[in-house]
Amino acid sequence: MTDKHLSTESYKGVRDFYPEDMAVQRYIFDTWAKTAESFGFERYDASILEPAELYKAKGAENEEMVNEQTYTFIDRGEREVTLRPEMTPTVARMVAGKRRELSFPVRWYSIPNLFRYERPQRGRLREHWQLNCDVFGANDLSADVEIIALAHQLLLDFGAKPEMFKIRINHRGALNAFLAENGIIDDAQVRAVTNVIDRKAKISATEFATAMETAAGKPLSLPEIMPEEVKHVIGGLIALGITNVEYDPSIVRGFSYYTGTIFEVFDVSGENNRSMLGGGRYDNLTGMFGGDPVSGIGFGMGDVTMRDFLETHKLLPESLSATGPEVMVIPMEAEFNLAGQALASTLRRATTTRVATDIGTKKLGKKIGDASDRQVRFVIVIGENEVTSQTFTIKDLRSGEETTGALAIIEGIVNNR
Amino acid sequence: MTDKHLSTESYKGVRDFYPEDMAVQRYIFDTWAKTAESFGFERYDASILEPAELYKAKGAENEEMVNEQTYTFIDRGEREVTLRPEMTPTVARMVAGKRRELSFPVRWYSIPNLFRYERPQRGRLREHWQLNCDVFGANDLSADVEIIALAHQLLLDFGAKPEMFKIRINHRGALNAFLAENGIIDDAQVRAVTNVIDRKAKISATEFATAMETAAGKPLSLPEIMPEEVKHVIGGLIALGITNVEYDPSIVRGFSYYTGTIFEVFDVSGENNRSMLGGGRYDNLTGMFGGDPVSGIGFGMGDVTMRDFLETHKLLPESLSATGPEVMVIPMEAEFNLAGQALASTLRRATTTRVATDIGTKKLGKKIGDASDRQVRFVIVIGENEVTSQTFTIKDLRSGEETTGALAIIEGIVNNR
Repeated sequence: MTDKHLSTESYKGVRDFYPEDMAVQRYIFDTWAKTAESFGFERYDASILEPAELYKAKGAENEEMVNEQTYTFIDRGEREVTLRPEMTPTVARMVAGKRRELSFPVRWYSIPNLFRYERPQRGRLREHWQLNCDVFGANDLSADVEIIALAHQLLLDFGAKPEMFKIRINHRGALNAFLAENGIIDDAQVRAVTNVIDRKAKISATEFATAMETAAGKPLSLPEIMPEEVKHVIGGLIALGITNVEYDPSIVRGFSYYTGTIFEVFDVSGENNRSMLGGGRYDNLTGMFGGDPVSGIGFGMGDVTMRDFLETHKLLPESLSATGPEVMVIPMEAEFNLAGQALASTLRRATTTRVATDIGTKKLGKKIGDASDRQVRFVIVIGENEVTSQTFTIKDLRSGEETTGALAIIEGIVNNR
Repeated sequence: MTDKHLSTESYKGVRDFYPEDMAVQRYIFDTWAKTAESFGFERYDASILEPAELYKAKGAENEEMVNEQTYTFIDRGEREVTLRPEMTPTVARMVAGKRRELSFPVRWYSIPNLFRYERPQRGRLREHWQLNCDVFGANDLSADVEIIALAHQLLLDFGAKPEMFKIRINHRGALNAFLAENGIIDDAQVRAVTNVIDRKAKISATEFATAMETAAGKPLSLPEIMPEEVKHVIGGLIALGITNVEYDPSIVRGFSYYTGTIFEVFDVSGENNRSMLGGGRYDNLTGMFGGDPVSGIGFGMGDVTMRDFLETHKLLPESLSATGPEVMVIPMEAEFNLAGQALASTLRRATTTRVATDIGTKKLGKKIGDASDRQVRFVIVIGENEVTSQTFTIKDLRSGEETTGALAIIEGIVNNR
């Protein structure tokens, strides 16, 4: 030991997952995976390390983003590497790489961790996980309906009711056409105006009108007429029984690669202002890799905002620590530890139970108390008598019932739990 | 599109996981998790980002390792950050951080991705995943027996036979005592001699003798008498029916924090020379965080060597792509895409099946062929007649059987698959 001790804190803005938090994380990931797969989506993954140029290629605004908001460094081979801040460029790279072998439409999902270099705040950390679902190679608007129906179903599968959240839809192409009609064509000005629209919910009506006039160079209100494509998508959703959906001309989405339907999902409780989920259609994301364009529509849904939503609406199951031992073998003294391990090993082979042996140095009573605190269902104490007679007593900590018998009896009780 | 296209290759030395590779990866991870949990181990996780000092603190050799073999960079807040090269320092940090709340012994496992900056080669990439299992706060040798029994069971649960692999055990304390008896006490010399011992299997007997003499300053053979602790551990394993185990004085393990039992598992096929799994006991890894020491024993097992082993011994199940759709709804024309989505949605609610709709633009026959290629079990074609009559025909692509009926009939067939 040295005089100067290291801190036990994690790196700033990231999280440690102790078993109790890991159980929540796994519950969220498992539910995501199950719902995505019920829609026929297949899972893929990739490394968090990507060439920095993958994010710079999309235009000047991205170069700024790469330089200021990502973890980017030069490796020892002089390559510029970025810890992926989003999954879409990666999946576009993968689709482009196998476009000749893939049979479109392709439905893929992933649960990557993503990195952003920014000041940690509620719902937004330096590392978070995100469910990403995409359909590639389907131009029909029924793909837009499907992907939004999947987003909706994901929340229902956590026990959410439709009245707890709202799906807001817009169309990026229609928005761009509206801006063009008003003489806003220049890239920088389009960005300035869409940034104001994006902030609409956070500022007053007066502030919004002023900011729009400054950015657009003239007074400009949002379009009120629903674009045809949005009508079609909302109609499709209603046909599927999904009605917590509305046209919202203030939805713009940050990324410039969107070209069609764009959407976000919001918690209506007022506790969580940030959108829980957002996505859209992009007609040619694979273009930067060459070859014919492949269209895509998809969304991302973060674990931090998901957990905030589940906690706000009390949707997290009470008991999630289901991976701890169900049976604890407790040796009377350390000399019976190996006999305990052998009994545990036998029980594992004969049953499908999770079995551990308490080989610690605490007193017997304390060990039984610990097992009870950890929600262990059964305890079996093992000492001289048990080893000699090969007769054991199993106690059900839930019912308090005790049974004594040979190994086969004990196995039967465990198997019938 | 620009003239200069981006490459679709991943960053050097890391892997893309397309669905077929992801299915293998998930099979490996799921099997690992299930076996670890059957031994009562609970899952934890942490970020890949750690303060660089966590790896430097263990001594000069580690500082060299951090500087030359890890991804380490300075963040914009002037913090030195490392992408974790191993999980043990992280879990030690987490255990030290909650040592007062934890009830020892603690059994934890994790499946982290780890990063090393080195030339990619067979069985060794820049990013790999590793199962890490550790028992903390159990000084008794029965913990050593248990952790090795877990390693053994992990391989059996993939279908491996004990004769396919060998467990080799040594004791770091006994090795250090043997070196001290021979006057080898100085840190640098201990490292030099253990490095030679570590290479024993890769060089000839003559080369070994020469190298040992150079490093030790005198002729030195390995100890032949099995240390008492190794006898005890091997005895315990034999009592559990595990016999593919032997004392091997040439096992040294690289990390300097080991103090007791050390072990490695090798494939005996001769195809894969690198150890598949290695671990050992460390008596005070939490010491660098201050407070009372907490002992630990654990191991790490990599996904790359695991997959190599499974492929060499033909242990990978033939059909692993179990997450694709089981039912494909195929619209006759694009105008029936939404009706297809609605039918898919109804089937998802009424059954536990994975259902997708083929909203692509290919001809009907090609769509049915694609479904067959993708191992889809059932197809349902939907067009004008089906929408009007609400009567559908479902075809079982495995048996060739076709059934026509109302929705309830279709649901029944899917549910009885």
